[in-house]
Amino acid sequence: MYNFGKIEFYMKKICIINGPNLNLLGKREPEIYGSSSFEDYFDTLKSSFPNVELTYFQSNIEGELINHLHDIGFKFDGIILNAGGYTHTSVAIADAVAAIDTKVIEVHISNPAAREKERHTSLLSKYCLGTISGLGLSSYYYALAYYMNQKT
Amino acid sequence: MYNFGKIEFYMKKICIINGPNLNLLGKREPEIYGSSSFEDYFDTLKSSFPNVELTYFQSNIEGELINHLHDIGFKFDGIILNAGGYTHTSVAIADAVAAIDTKVIEVHISNPAAREKERHTSLLSKYCLGTISGLGLSSYYYALAYYMNQKT
Amino acid sequence: MYNFGKIEFYMKKICIINGPNLNLLGKREPEIYGSSSFEDYFDTLKSSFPNVELTYFQSNIEGELINHLHDIGFKFDGIILNAGGYTHTSVAIADAVAAIDTKVIEVHISNPAAREKERHTSLLSKYCLGTISGLGLSSYYYALAYYMNQKT
Amino acid sequence: MYNFGKIEFYMKKICIINGPNLNLLGKREPEIYGSSSFEDYFDTLKSSFPNVELTYFQSNIEGELINHLHDIGFKFDGIILNAGGYTHTSVAIADAVAAIDTKVIEVHISNPAAREKERHTSLLSKYCLGTISGLGLSSYYYALAYYMNQKT
Amino acid sequence: MYNFGKIEFYMKKICIINGPNLNLLGKREPEIYGSSSFEDYFDTLKSSFPNVELTYFQSNIEGELINHLHDIGFKFDGIILNAGGYTHTSVAIADAVAAIDTKVIEVHISNPAAREKERHTSLLSKYCLGTISGLGLSSYYYALAYYMNQKT
Amino acid sequence: MYNFGKIEFYMKKICIINGPNLNLLGKREPEIYGSSSFEDYFDTLKSSFPNVELTYFQSNIEGELINHLHDIGFKFDGIILNAGGYTHTSVAIADAVAAIDTKVIEVHISNPAAREKERHTSLLSKYCLGTISGLGLSSYYYALAYYMNQKT
Amino acid sequence: MYNFGKIEFYMKKICIINGPNLNLLGKREPEIYGSSSFEDYFDTLKSSFPNVELTYFQSNIEGELINHLHDIGFKFDGIILNAGGYTHTSVAIADAVAAIDTKVIEVHISNPAAREKERHTSLLSKYCLGTISGLGLSSYYYALAYYMNQKT
Amino acid sequence: MYNFGKIEFYMKKICIINGPNLNLLGKREPEIYGSSSFEDYFDTLKSSFPNVELTYFQSNIEGELINHLHDIGFKFDGIILNAGGYTHTSVAIADAVAAIDTKVIEVHISNPAAREKERHTSLLSKYCLGTISGLGLSSYYYALAYYMNQKT
Amino acid sequence: MYNFGKIEFYMKKICIINGPNLNLLGKREPEIYGSSSFEDYFDTLKSSFPNVELTYFQSNIEGELINHLHDIGFKFDGIILNAGGYTHTSVAIADAVAAIDTKVIEVHISNPAAREKERHTSLLSKYCLGTISGLGLSSYYYALAYYMNQKT
Amino acid sequence: MYNFGKIEFYMKKICIINGPNLNLLGKREPEIYGSSSFEDYFDTLKSSFPNVELTYFQSNIEGELINHLHDIGFKFDGIILNAGGYTHTSVAIADAVAAIDTKVIEVHISNPAAREKERHTSLLSKYCLGTISGLGLSSYYYALAYYMNQKT
Amino acid sequence: MYNFGKIEFYMKKICIINGPNLNLLGKREPEIYGSSSFEDYFDTLKSSFPNVELTYFQSNIEGELINHLHDIGFKFDGIILNAGGYTHTSVAIADAVAAIDTKVIEVHISNPAAREKERHTSLLSKYCLGTISGLGLSSYYYALAYYMNQKT
Amino acid sequence: MYNFGKIEFYMKKICIINGPNLNLLGKREPEIYGSSSFEDYFDTLKSSFPNVELTYFQSNIEGELINHLHDIGFKFDGIILNAGGYTHTSVAIADAVAAIDTKVIEVHISNPAAREKERHTSLLSKYCLGTISGLGLSSYYYALAYYMNQKT
Repeated sequence: MYNFGKIEFYMKKICIINGPNLNLLGKREPEIYGSSSFEDYFDTLKSSFPNVELTYFQSNIEGELINHLHDIGFKFDGIILNAGGYTHTSVAIADAVAAIDTKVIEVHISNPAAREKERHTSLLSKYCLGTISGLGLSSYYYALAYYMNQKT
Repeated sequence: MYNFGKIEFYMKKICIINGPNLNLLGKREPEIYGSSSFEDYFDTLKSSFPNVELTYFQSNIEGELINHLHDIGFKFDGIILNAGGYTHTSVAIADAVAAIDTKVIEVHISNPAAREKERHTSLLSKYCLGTISGLGLSSYYYALAYYMNQKT
Repeated sequence: MYNFGKIEFYMKKICIINGPNLNLLGKREPEIYGSSSFEDYFDTLKSSFPNVELTYFQSNIEGELINHLHDIGFKFDGIILNAGGYTHTSVAIADAVAAIDTKVIEVHISNPAAREKERHTSLLSKYCLGTISGLGLSSYYYALAYYMNQKT
Repeated sequence: MYNFGKIEFYMKKICIINGPNLNLLGKREPEIYGSSSFEDYFDTLKSSFPNVELTYFQSNIEGELINHLHDIGFKFDGIILNAGGYTHTSVAIADAVAAIDTKVIEVHISNPAAREKERHTSLLSKYCLGTISGLGLSSYYYALAYYMNQKT
Repeated sequence: MYNFGKIEFYMKKICIINGPNLNLLGKREPEIYGSSSFEDYFDTLKSSFPNVELTYFQSNIEGELINHLHDIGFKFDGIILNAGGYTHTSVAIADAVAAIDTKVIEVHISNPAAREKERHTSLLSKYCLGTISGLGLSSYYYALAYYMNQKT
Repeated sequence: MYNFGKIEFYMKKICIINGPNLNLLGKREPEIYGSSSFEDYFDTLKSSFPNVELTYFQSNIEGELINHLHDIGFKFDGIILNAGGYTHTSVAIADAVAAIDTKVIEVHISNPAAREKERHTSLLSKYCLGTISGLGLSSYYYALAYYMNQKT
Repeated sequence: MYNFGKIEFYMKKICIINGPNLNLLGKREPEIYGSSSFEDYFDTLKSSFPNVELTYFQSNIEGELINHLHDIGFKFDGIILNAGGYTHTSVAIADAVAAIDTKVIEVHISNPAAREKERHTSLLSKYCLGTISGLGLSSYYYALAYYMNQKT
Repeated sequence: MYNFGKIEFYMKKICIINGPNLNLLGKREPEIYGSSSFEDYFDTLKSSFPNVELTYFQSNIEGELINHLHDIGFKFDGIILNAGGYTHTSVAIADAVAAIDTKVIEVHISNPAAREKERHTSLLSKYCLGTISGLGLSSYYYALAYYMNQKT
Repeated sequence: MYNFGKIEFYMKKICIINGPNLNLLGKREPEIYGSSSFEDYFDTLKSSFPNVELTYFQSNIEGELINHLHDIGFKFDGIILNAGGYTHTSVAIADAVAAIDTKVIEVHISNPAAREKERHTSLLSKYCLGTISGLGLSSYYYALAYYMNQKT
Repeated sequence: MYNFGKIEFYMKKICIINGPNLNLLGKREPEIYGSSSFEDYFDTLKSSFPNVELTYFQSNIEGELINHLHDIGFKFDGIILNAGGYTHTSVAIADAVAAIDTKVIEVHISNPAAREKERHTSLLSKYCLGTISGLGLSSYYYALAYYMNQKT
Repeated sequence: MYNFGKIEFYMKKICIINGPNLNLLGKREPEIYGSSSFEDYFDTLKSSFPNVELTYFQSNIEGELINHLHDIGFKFDGIILNAGGYTHTSVAIADAVAAIDTKVIEVHISNPAAREKERHTSLLSKYCLGTISGLGLSSYYYALAYYMNQKT
Repeated sequence: MYNFGKIEFYMKKICIINGPNLNLLGKREPEIYGSSSFEDYFDTLKSSFPNVELTYFQSNIEGELINHLHDIGFKFDGIILNAGGYTHTSVAIADAVAAIDTKVIEVHISNPAAREKERHTSLLSKYCLGTISGLGLSSYYYALAYYMNQKT
């Protein structure tokens, strides 16, 4: 009998980054954002996709989001970014998305187009791979599924 | 021995509607839209989701798209709509989306935000459940997956 | 006994043209558009004005509306046009209204000024004789009454 | 023989309010506004609709129009308002229309959409029941007819 | 000897109309408007042009300005109008200027173009014969001179 | 014993000026403006601040508001101005505020920023000392308190 | 003796496509568009250029114009497109022009720049080879001449 | 003798939050912002209102302001927010204000409407209870007074 | 007898500067500009005002107008400038007007406000003393009269 | 043999006017403008159309272009104008085109609609007979052909 | 021999502040920003200007940039600020620049005017001494040279 | 002994081009532009950089600036351009900058961003290498230094 030794299996590294106020999920305006917290949902996601190194980062501080994009942006396989209110005002985060190598999918829980006018324009979209919005928390799910289905 | 009799199994009815110029897929500007035709991709989708009544409709004529939305919009479980160039100019299709009962997910193969300015505004989005764009043909895939995962 | 012979009595020819989604009337958003179908209302109109050749045309297709305007626009006594969503986007229908000889009154069931911003501008108005809006289905009634009261 | 006693018959109370420059009617730019004075026309209206308490108020002063709207706006059955040039500039009259209980129909003798750009926007429309424009003085006639035909 | 009897000499009738806040002249912001009151200046004007029936009207009320334009606008030889702040906001005064027969010259004491942005557009200008601005109180003087020099 | 004679005590003179439709307070849209009339509230204010000559003026007529600003604007210690709908459209009232010596505080009962877009811009603010809005009728109270607390 | 056999001579295939209302040519507003019908002119064109396979297509329906552009757009040598009112509103026709291989010259009979503002912008121009406008029906003639003079 | 036991007295908890550059108060542009530091003023406020738990937070970092709004926004009785330059650019702070339960009054020391154009729009106002601006440091005083006067 | 010797009498130096196309006066669009040439009118002006050194300069070249403004702009008593089409487009001429010492009155023969939209904005006005427009050639006359009446 | 004597034959006089930077043709950005100089092309044009007095004028100076338009604009049979960068900024050249009698066709070598935004608007077009653009140097050819084919 | 003791020599204190994403220099989009890191370049700068106390600060966090501007803004001789993406969105940094005493020169490595539209407006420029952009890293060099050449 | 013969030393050729009104330097608005003339400063520059062939050209005529850019734009090593007021209005100069081979640095003495709005946009910037503004006359110095420091 022979022994294959240790078979290396490649685990994709994907990070979900949430911007300002998303730490309030489950608490804030549940008629728009639903009532489960993101941490709960993150556990669900990890169970659904066991074969991925999935990490999570949240900050209300614009520059910390940029720092995190820099930290992981040259070594991860995918970033799922919900930049919250910064989506509509931050050229600097847009620059960070453009500057890094890892592809970014922009997600939104609600449908910004159905809300106030100042949420209709995203400064980030043009540097992202694509956008998924309005599907509730499952917007994150399908973004993750997309990355998992891509050939490495 | 026992007999289960006839087990009724509910098949969701979902329709993909493509607007103008999407019949050229595979032929037109492949650097933006890829090189496989939509019909090929439709077969793939049907294999991936065997338990759904999936239909397809394409027209270059704005009013025929409206007609089709009317025809199916009170009896289907989901509509996946890529209205092509009408996305940005048709209040009438937007009205049709608002008028029907079936939920609509707006999809785009490319990322309109990364293209010309006249493609940055969708008149349809606010009446849709959500949007998936920029993920190539798999934008349709994830829209379909979303409907399949919803409880009936 | 005497015989009047055949008395020729001139019957005005007036046509109501409805644009996209108005075929859904009675079905679609009844809180805005009311719950009777246009066909029902059309019968009422005919009873109210027995001395007019009143015809009705509906299409969701922009160009068919233009075709019909061309067909009748040089031989009718009045056109009552509710172009639905095309009101706000169609230079081509506006051109057709300008090109024909028959006068056109623009009607709306609801009051577009009280709805979304993209419904506040009509491209057709400037080529029409006038506008009646917001009076429910009786918007059509008063447009018709106007034509009937005009001297031939 | 019997005696019905006094039969109470409800007379609707409707007021026509004309804004600035409409006192010049018949004198001013007859190619646009026609050549009969409004007072003459008002007599015609009263003959046409004998079963209504019809009153008339005209002022060139914005605040007097507001005062009159306040005076009658909680006890009349209908107001027909042609605010003239204030249509396009007066948030205060719009506020008065919104504040009162009586429904208001906005009328215009000419078709503002066919005139200069600054006449294309009405600040009042969104608070009115509807609009009738471009039918000459008979714009008033049909607005009055509408109120008369409504069930009380 | 013969007697010419009474020689009729035609006196032009010209009216100066001042709008809101011009009653404060001499008191208000003298660095912009100078320090003599308009009444003083009006006496000077009358001395300079003895052969004219020169009248003066001032009101802070938009509609009273319209009323006065109506009153004199079919029988005077010239109107000199400084509509003050209403210059930039009143479609109704513009309508009155358009509606009357007498020609109107728009005057301003200061140069509106050198002041705040909301003073850069005049709604009246297009219906006036012309404009004289920035020449201090003598703006009125030259407007009057113009009318006096025109052949009757 | 000695006698101080009559001690002169300086009473500040402050005026509240309300613009169009504010006479309807308590009657009009109570969900926005509350249900007590301004006259009632004015009595409360006078009780709260007994040591002030507090006067009140209301008019729906733009020019009367200007007249009143002129009348008191060179001899009062403070003006509290709620110009209602004229806030957003009147360059002439703005001119009056700029022209007078007395300081003006702009007040609003509701929060205009939370209402329709045409209420988001005030033409008056830049000439006022400051603004208090959204605190219900107590917006007037704090404006008055401010004037009372200023050293004379 | 020798025989050259059949000498193949290449005939260019060029199509003229006319959009909405151009079927009314000769009937509609002759002071703008002239009084001969397009069919008459088409015969003239064919006589002037005998060595070309010249075809003609007209539709008032936006999507049928797109269909026809698709049908011929990969096998013709030139397209001459007068999209009428769709010129200014159709992203979908613009997409079709961009998607096909055959070059398109945009033509207009009148000079859109000398007409109303909404005719000043063409959504098609940027995807066309060039534009010829204002030369009456001979705009078509020179577009055709251009294609004929190009080397194959 | 009797014993009241421990009388519980409710102290309202109110927090003042200052945004970027307000730490420079007293140092920066004193002609606009006055010359006392905010810390000095805060002591004055505490003396004026001894029966309140008054806290103070300042940060130049947008996200730290959001963090603090989250920390106190579900347990305080009132927040007084001067977001400085972020007032005009931060959708994210606006979201935080909307997301929390505690009411927020927006204050400004100077009158933004009298300064540069980019300071004329507040993104926060619509989610705040109201605004007090232009009253110098006493803008904070009256906001605090308002909260103290509200019934708990 | 006494001898006054030579009495020095100060002659004001005033220059009229005409910009592009004004050399065509009398030839070009006489329904707008009248039919006498400017040279004829200049002679009239000199007769009317014999006690002034009046010069005239015309050029179609923007920079030559600037050159001339520089040449005379530090030694003349007044400049009357009709910059024609450059009025609306030349920041450089505006700069020259601002840079020189001599006061400039802007004149126009026609009333630009009554013509096309691109003629409604003058880049020069804010640096000029004032404007006279719409009075035909006498616009120049009154500008000159103004300078003559000023005390030196 | 007989002799016809001298047959007078009318030669049309047509001028091509090129504006700024077109003197660089063949040298400047050849990927946009091609590599032959305009002088070479002008010789070709003269050979192609021997029966026309064809002249050529180029200047980089806006006013010289105006001067030339004046010089020839009342005696030529046609002008072909490529105003280069002045197309988009010169009201003065537009005025000259409007002022002269000779018809002007606007030409462009490249297709301005396919280039930067500031090249999308022509101030000249509305005063020209028509436009030919995007056909390379042959844009001039077809403009010339048009003039030659017009009946004199 | 004598001893001068210690000669005090004034060293200017100058700080370079870099905003978001500039820490990626050399890594990010080298075709735009070049390939050397800023730290390397900073050493070069220090060698080139040995007689200056040159410090460096970088942060991706808007508020930390403000903090640093405050820290050094009252004691340094010059600040060189490249605020990256915050250049276009931060009123708060602009406020900080306005609030401090030290002069600020705005620098950019690339030429923002040649990039996307949202980079064409700087909110900072108006409070800065001047701007140097597009000269690559030497933009910093010349800003520093400028400060060194100023007299203290 | 040896002989080096003639050592060829390359002198860079650099030209400074100044646009309209810059000939007034030292005379015009010294509070903005300083009080030395450009000619004086040019001598200083030549002393500072002895090893360069430095030339100077000024014109108030737009087209002459274009002519000069053409003349030197294919054989110089650098151009320093201050186009004055043409900076903001000249597409034609922008075209010339784009058309030539020599790199251009845009300079401004004052900081246009701190002046009027119409000076905030430069049409030239996007075709220039970079911009130096606000450093007074030394803006020219550093532009020249940049060229001198570039390797040839």
